[in-house]
Amino acid sequence: MALAVDWELRLQLEGTSHDPMYRRVAQAIAVDIRCGRLPAGTVLPGTRRLAQTLGIHRNTALAAYRELAGEGFIDTRPGLGTFVVERQGTDEPTPLTAARHRVPRTAPYRLRTPSGALIRRRPHPPGTLVLSHLPAPSEVPGVALARAYRGALRRRADDVLDYAQRYDSGAPFGHPRLRRALAQMLARTRGLMATAEDVLVTTGSQMALYLVALALVEPGDVIAVEGLGYRPVWEAFRFAGAVVVPVGVDREGLCVEELRALTERTAVRAVYVTPHHQHPTGVTLTPPRRRALLELATAHDMAVIEDDYDCQFEYGGRTIRPLASIDPQGRVIYVGSLSKVLAPGLRIGYAVAPNSVLELMAERRCFIDRQGDHALACAVAEMIENGELRRHIGRLHATYRSRRDALAEALQSRLGGAIDFDVPEGGTAVWARVDTGIDVDRWHARAIEHGVVFEPGSSFSLSPGASAHARFGFAGLSVPQLQEAVRRLALALASAEG
Amino acid sequence: MALAVDWELRLQLEGTSHDPMYRRVAQAIAVDIRCGRLPAGTVLPGTRRLAQTLGIHRNTALAAYRELAGEGFIDTRPGLGTFVVERQGTDEPTPLTAARHRVPRTAPYRLRTPSGALIRRRPHPPGTLVLSHLPAPSEVPGVALARAYRGALRRRADDVLDYAQRYDSGAPFGHPRLRRALAQMLARTRGLMATAEDVLVTTGSQMALYLVALALVEPGDVIAVEGLGYRPVWEAFRFAGAVVVPVGVDREGLCVEELRALTERTAVRAVYVTPHHQHPTGVTLTPPRRRALLELATAHDMAVIEDDYDCQFEYGGRTIRPLASIDPQGRVIYVGSLSKVLAPGLRIGYAVAPNSVLELMAERRCFIDRQGDHALACAVAEMIENGELRRHIGRLHATYRSRRDALAEALQSRLGGAIDFDVPEGGTAVWARVDTGIDVDRWHARAIEHGVVFEPGSSFSLSPGASAHARFGFAGLSVPQLQEAVRRLALALASAEG
Repeated sequence: MALAVDWELRLQLEGTSHDPMYRRVAQAIAVDIRCGRLPAGTVLPGTRRLAQTLGIHRNTALAAYRELAGEGFIDTRPGLGTFVVERQGTDEPTPLTAARHRVPRTAPYRLRTPSGALIRRRPHPPGTLVLSHLPAPSEVPGVALARAYRGALRRRADDVLDYAQRYDSGAPFGHPRLRRALAQMLARTRGLMATAEDVLVTTGSQMALYLVALALVEPGDVIAVEGLGYRPVWEAFRFAGAVVVPVGVDREGLCVEELRALTERTAVRAVYVTPHHQHPTGVTLTPPRRRALLELATAHDMAVIEDDYDCQFEYGGRTIRPLASIDPQGRVIYVGSLSKVLAPGLRIGYAVAPNSVLELMAERRCFIDRQGDHALACAVAEMIENGELRRHIGRLHATYRSRRDALAEALQSRLGGAIDFDVPEGGTAVWARVDTGIDVDRWHARAIEHGVVFEPGSSFSLSPGASAHARFGFAGLSVPQLQEAVRRLALALASAEG
Repeated sequence: MALAVDWELRLQLEGTSHDPMYRRVAQAIAVDIRCGRLPAGTVLPGTRRLAQTLGIHRNTALAAYRELAGEGFIDTRPGLGTFVVERQGTDEPTPLTAARHRVPRTAPYRLRTPSGALIRRRPHPPGTLVLSHLPAPSEVPGVALARAYRGALRRRADDVLDYAQRYDSGAPFGHPRLRRALAQMLARTRGLMATAEDVLVTTGSQMALYLVALALVEPGDVIAVEGLGYRPVWEAFRFAGAVVVPVGVDREGLCVEELRALTERTAVRAVYVTPHHQHPTGVTLTPPRRRALLELATAHDMAVIEDDYDCQFEYGGRTIRPLASIDPQGRVIYVGSLSKVLAPGLRIGYAVAPNSVLELMAERRCFIDRQGDHALACAVAEMIENGELRRHIGRLHATYRSRRDALAEALQSRLGGAIDFDVPEGGTAVWARVDTGIDVDRWHARAIEHGVVFEPGSSFSLSPGASAHARFGFAGLSVPQLQEAVRRLALALASAEG
């Protein structure tokens, strides 16, 4: 005997007015069945009553029930009427129950306007030679990394996977194995007496710098930066509430006297420097400037954020030690990354600083993404421990040196009249002064048309406006490619000038 | 002929007063030599003059020079005096030049006080059974993931490594291959009609929720949340400037009428819900409540943040579709993660929302860490595309179902008098009401001593104070381990009560 259930007919019609009514009614009923509002066994009203209640034609109601029966949602038996069937199987959406709407492009509520910082760039056409300071895919130690990653995942020992599993209180600092490996690496290569406890592992140096700013800055605090630098870092500082103020850079690095003058006008919370190879000019902050900077920082109670960008590739043979290694007070926060020696896409950065700073950074990291990828961390630690990373850097080093030489020669030969540069002692790019009669941005645009990309100086300047400089990276191209790239640069220049 | 250079004797003594003076003087000179302040060939003052200038004993000066000569920094020749030697070789720190100071524990400048959110927990002793809702290491599909990762790194095709290399304007959204794979997965399993363009990949759902809050919230905006929930998410909302206000949860999920009352008292910017399996109670937001919530959100122009936490494990056979799939306006921001099906340490989360929201989220992501790990993204995409992930979920599903049954039986049998619970229809934990005469927090502490860990209800409550609830996860332990865990819980309870 059938039970006639008093089913409250309140259907929310799906679809749009372009869809046939029978289909919209069928969908609405299917949705209610699927979400449990109409459980299996529920007796549905007859087509006449359905049509009456909904204000539709009886044929429409019939067609709706036919659709539902066809997809196995309902069944009709003599004497029982039409009832909801028990559905077995998966939750695969059926044509009726799949959401009929796409995700709209705009949300209905108010939103702030995008800042436009996310520059949508069309991809370069195939065959474009990019004079990048970053390694090319062929440089990534993929085989070694994959092997180390597999090893990290396979080790059943708690210290790899179990740690990777649990939201541990130490997790925001990074996996202890990688913290330890990085500390040892930094002691060996940069003379920093750090232990694992002094290291925080982050998703690239970008995150490390963002966390540093979050830890140090009250809204409106001033962070002084080199006037030529890396825009995404300034944005992170601003995003953390800081006011970013540029200080000049000359052939000895940051102009400390200019910074001194700034400190006499306003309180400066921190100064951000790239003292090993200034980004992008490549100059090394000289020893007198280093002492003066640390003395000034002490006198005005400033933090010093040292980004040891690009410390792995040194061609001259003599490496200068980082500020952090001559800083017994703990005023320097040391930041670095493995982006240049692994791949920028692999996101391993680190900070070395007094624990009171790391603690604040880790707290904030917890809110942001809780922790990094610990399997990758163990894989990278493996590569540091077994010397694989050092060997890889050694090979890269030799490769980069010859590329540097080839690029310098080609630039001198084909563009010697238009540009002027010092052959860099380290790093992976040439920073060149461009003849003031040349419009660098126009050259840059014309170069893209000619199939070569370089970085115009204006992209590194905190102050807006044109710049009479250009950067040509050599990490991403082979020697023949570099020669071809310079040939195209020369063509593009002639075309821009003509 | 020797040149006597007028060397400004301004040494910064290294080390501490515990180190012998001759050593501190030697170190200071070595540092100046190493950092280039005293270049090769510089003639140093004689020991008498050095002693006089520094105010030390002449023997001390002699000992200092002996130390420096011993390490090859200086040399003495008759008629030439003592001079700095050209040093060959690496930058390996020598005993003299290695930074003599460790990284201090505290920074010298002012810092705000840590919030204490980073709870330092001592690791549990080996053998402790943790009733976790997260998969154990043995559950992680390590072999498949390692294979997919190797495949992702080896493919020379630009779409994997090259993309991973460049800071591309699309990079903050995640690798397009994973965006596409996730969109297809969500269409298939959750009925969301999303395409790759509608998906943003993040470092876990934590980052997705943090970015959502950053995109939506002006300081002081209210986000309404379920009064029982996940603390790190509330902290992320607060950190983004929101005021977090709790709304009650009952057996039908979020109390929408209570939310309605709130909207009459104050403007509410967004409401955060876990409608599929409420975290932690496990209840599903009923269909009438779902409609009411969406209607209320429309009436008050609120955003709805749907965290589809725990949607992959359903034992009852009937899955309810997400709010986002019945939301043609685009009011719902849908967030999920693969933490429960891969490993929480592998950090793959995602958001599906109108592009105007994703754009704001991606902009902020850019400042925070620029992009995620694209090699991992491709590996995970591979596992989605080749069905490996689905097979893995299927295996887990069967495992979890039997673990659920075993845990429920053991709890009923040994603790039936003290606790009361519904066998969960989905997810990986049992949410139990505890007899009000029992102090749950004391039971929790005693349980740790007995070698078993569960989650007391108080850890999920936005309002402080004790809670008469407990959560027992079953994802991380085998059936025998679960039975043993419950045995220990019973012992601990008896001990806590006695």
